[in-house]
Amino acid sequence: MRIVLDASGGDHAPQATVAGAIAAARTWGDQIILVGDEAAIRAELAKHDISNLDLVVVNAPEIIEMTEHPAQAIRRKRNSPVAVGLRLVREGEADAFVSAGHSGATMAGALFILGRIRGIERPCLVTHFPTVNGYALLLDSGATTDCKPEYLVQFAQMGNVYAQKIANIPMPRIGLLANGEESNKGDKLVQDTHGLLLQRPDLNFVGNVEPKDMLINGSADVVVADGFVGNLVLKFGEGVFKMITTAAANNIKATWRQNLALGLLPTLAALALPGKGRWRAVIAGLTGLSLPASLAVAPLLALRKRMDYRSHGGAPLLGVNGIAIIAHGKSDALAIQNAIGQARNAVEQRVVATISHALETVELVPSA
Amino acid sequence: MRIVLDASGGDHAPQATVAGAIAAARTWGDQIILVGDEAAIRAELAKHDISNLDLVVVNAPEIIEMTEHPAQAIRRKRNSPVAVGLRLVREGEADAFVSAGHSGATMAGALFILGRIRGIERPCLVTHFPTVNGYALLLDSGATTDCKPEYLVQFAQMGNVYAQKIANIPMPRIGLLANGEESNKGDKLVQDTHGLLLQRPDLNFVGNVEPKDMLINGSADVVVADGFVGNLVLKFGEGVFKMITTAAANNIKATWRQNLALGLLPTLAALALPGKGRWRAVIAGLTGLSLPASLAVAPLLALRKRMDYRSHGGAPLLGVNGIAIIAHGKSDALAIQNAIGQARNAVEQRVVATISHALETVELVPSA
Repeated sequence: MRIVLDASGGDHAPQATVAGAIAAARTWGDQIILVGDEAAIRAELAKHDISNLDLVVVNAPEIIEMTEHPAQAIRRKRNSPVAVGLRLVREGEADAFVSAGHSGATMAGALFILGRIRGIERPCLVTHFPTVNGYALLLDSGATTDCKPEYLVQFAQMGNVYAQKIANIPMPRIGLLANGEESNKGDKLVQDTHGLLLQRPDLNFVGNVEPKDMLINGSADVVVADGFVGNLVLKFGEGVFKMITTAAANNIKATWRQNLALGLLPTLAALALPGKGRWRAVIAGLTGLSLPASLAVAPLLALRKRMDYRSHGGAPLLGVNGIAIIAHGKSDALAIQNAIGQARNAVEQRVVATISHALETVELVPSA
Repeated sequence: MRIVLDASGGDHAPQATVAGAIAAARTWGDQIILVGDEAAIRAELAKHDISNLDLVVVNAPEIIEMTEHPAQAIRRKRNSPVAVGLRLVREGEADAFVSAGHSGATMAGALFILGRIRGIERPCLVTHFPTVNGYALLLDSGATTDCKPEYLVQFAQMGNVYAQKIANIPMPRIGLLANGEESNKGDKLVQDTHGLLLQRPDLNFVGNVEPKDMLINGSADVVVADGFVGNLVLKFGEGVFKMITTAAANNIKATWRQNLALGLLPTLAALALPGKGRWRAVIAGLTGLSLPASLAVAPLLALRKRMDYRSHGGAPLLGVNGIAIIAHGKSDALAIQNAIGQARNAVEQRVVATISHALETVELVPSA
């Protein structure tokens, strides 16, 4: 397999991208095509032992700034990593494209260069959103902000294929994100989409899912929303989690001395008294003090790990004629490697062909 | 002051409503008018000492079911607590209405019976949303799901007045909830509203606020969204918080024995050895073990208290010609008392007259 990586994209490029590419090439034996500023990439590669690895460098020196309009930039900067990388995919010289750079540019580039899958109105991004017992596939999490009900139905279809192929769920439960379970909840877009989804024989539609259904009860495998709402709740979830850990950390800081003092008291009392068992008492007190303190930190650390975008790598853009994975701008080497792994999975599971096939099959079924 | 309370509304009525009304009457000396099933209310009142309290009972036995269409139910059931209570406010026989019952019915009832403030297109709900360092006023948090940009501008104006009068913020920072700070973020509604808000000389508009700006950085005092998005993020925030505490509790349960065993080891070791200081060592070990364990629970408990809807009582419905407070369906006596307190504040601060006045004043200012 041949995966193109935007080696100049992301906050920690090219260190993280090159290290991630090397790890991926070593783990899976794939060819990784590094596109970007060739000199910088080669300088970074020189720091590693890359013997026996299939690494190719393609120069693509033009830089798309974060302030640039994505669609215009893609048209104008034909030698940017995104434009060069996606052309390699279109021309069959690579199987997938991964970037942690300007996500708008990747989305616009994928639309212009790869094109849409025949029949698909708009693309959507898929995110693994952590829940109490695992995760839900949230889509669209940011590709198409202004949607019609028909778009959301297609997002549901694409999510259905993705959940079957990638998450190995035979009959994924499809939910519509809303502020209440009843079919009259949500705004007009949600209500109209609800009506359309009820008529789809190809989808296991479980109705509206409230946030608590999605996060606590795990009522749906695939959660559908428009790109504005999906992206907003994604950021809202990250924000609330950050808020809680920040507030908890402030609280631990604030009460730490007090707790420490209380915990140390018996130890100090033992130390002050004369007698043979004095040191034993001190050791018992100190050990008893430090070990259970891990109770305070462990649960939050465990959750943070599950909420960490790095474990899933990135968000696949569905609906375009090829595999494009949008990795987090803050991606480190592990996140880049996982994003490449995600691209591999999508290629192996023939996600694009399956979405295309699902659309064709469904069109044969008369809607109610 | 005279506050009407829907004594039959809410999951814990009439116990919680009657107890909350009594606490409010005792604390502030106000007249509380309890509307609802008279027999049930009187039976509940009989369990308390209500001497010297100004409590009035008004029979309103008709029940609006949760499954009923709010607007139809309000028109049909003229003897429901919501209809009776709001008529008392309209006719000047009470100063404010509070209900923990069917929130849709209260909103519909307030619109039909109290009417809108002259010039206001649609009403909105205000919620105190907890942040790292306090809270933000989120509106609309659920009254008007399908909005035009003009509605959101009016929500901003109403939030501005509410923040000045009730939260005592002289020049509230008004933010527009979006998935990015840049003015081209958000859906079309957000983008169009952004343009309109920039032209308002009466508002201290700080631009788009991302979730992290709202929750962590505290960048805005008033956060504006349409009623669908506002209600959804409100429920999403509750959901993520519940998810984290549930997962943390599961984690604490899972690691508890292990931590306990590790913490106890030195104590048991001390106990096993002979010598004078043995008991001192055991006491030191056990005390050292138990006290810092509070570290694990304290931060989450402290946050839960701040996230608790009960501390703010309820969400005021702004834009209608009178004070209506929508309390949480799960309200206990404390939450009911706080909702009554919130109604008192709104009456004392003349929130309705001030909103009305703000609209008139602003119309004199030519927009850019």
